[in-house]
Amino acid sequence: MKAVVALGGNALTGKDRKADIDKQFEATQETAKSIVKMIKNGWHIVITHGNGPQVGALLLQQKLSMAEVPQMPLHVLVALTQGQIGYVVQQCLLNEFKRQGIKRDVVTVITQVLVDENDPAFKKPTKPIGPIYGEEEAKKMMKYYTMGKVEDGWRILVPSPKPISIVEAEIIKKLAEKDIIVIAAGGGGIPVVKRGESLIGVDAVIDKDLASQKLANEIMADILLILTDVDFVFLNYGKENEEAIHEISADELEKHYKEGHFPSGSMGPKVEASINFVRNGGKRAIITSIGKAWEALEGKAGTQILP
Amino acid sequence: MKAVVALGGNALTGKDRKADIDKQFEATQETAKSIVKMIKNGWHIVITHGNGPQVGALLLQQKLSMAEVPQMPLHVLVALTQGQIGYVVQQCLLNEFKRQGIKRDVVTVITQVLVDENDPAFKKPTKPIGPIYGEEEAKKMMKYYTMGKVEDGWRILVPSPKPISIVEAEIIKKLAEKDIIVIAAGGGGIPVVKRGESLIGVDAVIDKDLASQKLANEIMADILLILTDVDFVFLNYGKENEEAIHEISADELEKHYKEGHFPSGSMGPKVEASINFVRNGGKRAIITSIGKAWEALEGKAGTQILP
Repeated sequence: MKAVVALGGNALTGKDRKADIDKQFEATQETAKSIVKMIKNGWHIVITHGNGPQVGALLLQQKLSMAEVPQMPLHVLVALTQGQIGYVVQQCLLNEFKRQGIKRDVVTVITQVLVDENDPAFKKPTKPIGPIYGEEEAKKMMKYYTMGKVEDGWRILVPSPKPISIVEAEIIKKLAEKDIIVIAAGGGGIPVVKRGESLIGVDAVIDKDLASQKLANEIMADILLILTDVDFVFLNYGKENEEAIHEISADELEKHYKEGHFPSGSMGPKVEASINFVRNGGKRAIITSIGKAWEALEGKAGTQILP
Repeated sequence: MKAVVALGGNALTGKDRKADIDKQFEATQETAKSIVKMIKNGWHIVITHGNGPQVGALLLQQKLSMAEVPQMPLHVLVALTQGQIGYVVQQCLLNEFKRQGIKRDVVTVITQVLVDENDPAFKKPTKPIGPIYGEEEAKKMMKYYTMGKVEDGWRILVPSPKPISIVEAEIIKKLAEKDIIVIAAGGGGIPVVKRGESLIGVDAVIDKDLASQKLANEIMADILLILTDVDFVFLNYGKENEEAIHEISADELEKHYKEGHFPSGSMGPKVEASINFVRNGGKRAIITSIGKAWEALEGKAGTQILP
């Protein structure tokens, strides 16, 4: 059985989104234990991951030093974070393998994801990335970026086009089937468009859950396991009548989605990715926390989404 | 036949070491043509590369923004550049394949390289990285770094321990033998040491030619092709009696090396890597420029080092 495991913030940085690199290693070392458990139980695993705090830090560093060092576009920053986080995950997994006497290869594959140049997202940036700015600084930033108001201030908004296909899917599939642990499509993948026959990077960030779903379908994974900060998807989340969803069909989940139960910035894309996955041949999508990952894969925890 | 091709500065950034990312794509697209020629002629290729200008830019950005964003250690910065440069090389190769109607997978493998914690290099940083600083700024920097005097100013010096083994060698070998183009050991690889059974990153930069040689021997490559800014290794380089070396044995080359013909900061490590390679089972090492790469692989150009 083949599973794509999408690691969210907590799994990589712990609760503190501004965690420094030592804390990122610590949090990831903990996460590695859950993943090794899956592997020991015979699962073929492809790991995907977010990059919010990491790409945010790079973006801020680029901006603060732009007078002296030329800035790099977003697609290149995503590539940088794939190297960074891939390294951290790779080292933590190898160390956990060693501890448990397992022999297995781990490979990070730098991954490009094709998007459509005419995706309406390019005209309307909606995805907040990087740090939160005060009003004054936000006004200065508007010279360079589209800025959007969020709860506690302002953030840079970037286009978030839909993933069409994973450029490196074929090789990722081959590797996974050879029982090699693959880390791929980090940060939603490096967004590229087609110009004639050539690929070219674009200034955007792809949602990591939607990219993970595309990858999962393209490599014909059985399970898409999305790990986030909560144990379940909830109806009426945060309200008095909130209710955890244990098992649900894609159609029923879509109904709730359309009713507005899942905010577009957080649970929305995870729900959308899960629905897409099971409608395109996936057996089961799961949304849960890293702590419940193993139980959920066994069908004993988390929100299980069925075709 | 299997070749490890080590790309130096010119091949990735062109003549301008401060080339911005667009120029890096341009230079690499040009390089891709030579590599595709090798592939079309049946060579299995593993590509390694330097990261001097790229890691220098990151280091400077980290420093300029350290008041607001926590700095990351060198081993993590190397991982970042592996993602960045791997992406650029990968995309340029895929585009060149498309143009020439070739179907081939390309994979960047994030690579760790084991070094010895007791390597004397850790006590005596010698490798200059990053930008050149004026005297005043260099004095301030001494609080954080070992600074060394170079021709036109001061640079940060970091330890450059010898590579012992390539952590991901086995998987790189498997991929290369499946006719997949692999990009690996970028920037000399991410330096790690063993603490007990665990790997842990260290603040150092490994020479990329020595790391390429280790990799080439470990994956049992036939040829190590080191691409740099000159067509040949020269005796008495830059002097009136300078003389290009066409073909030479490892022993003879070592003799010239000991006589001080090759400076430690540039040609020295390439010569050392070539000698090591053919003494450890390699058939032939070549040092030449990217423009002569294909002819040299055919034995018709460059400096050919034989066992």
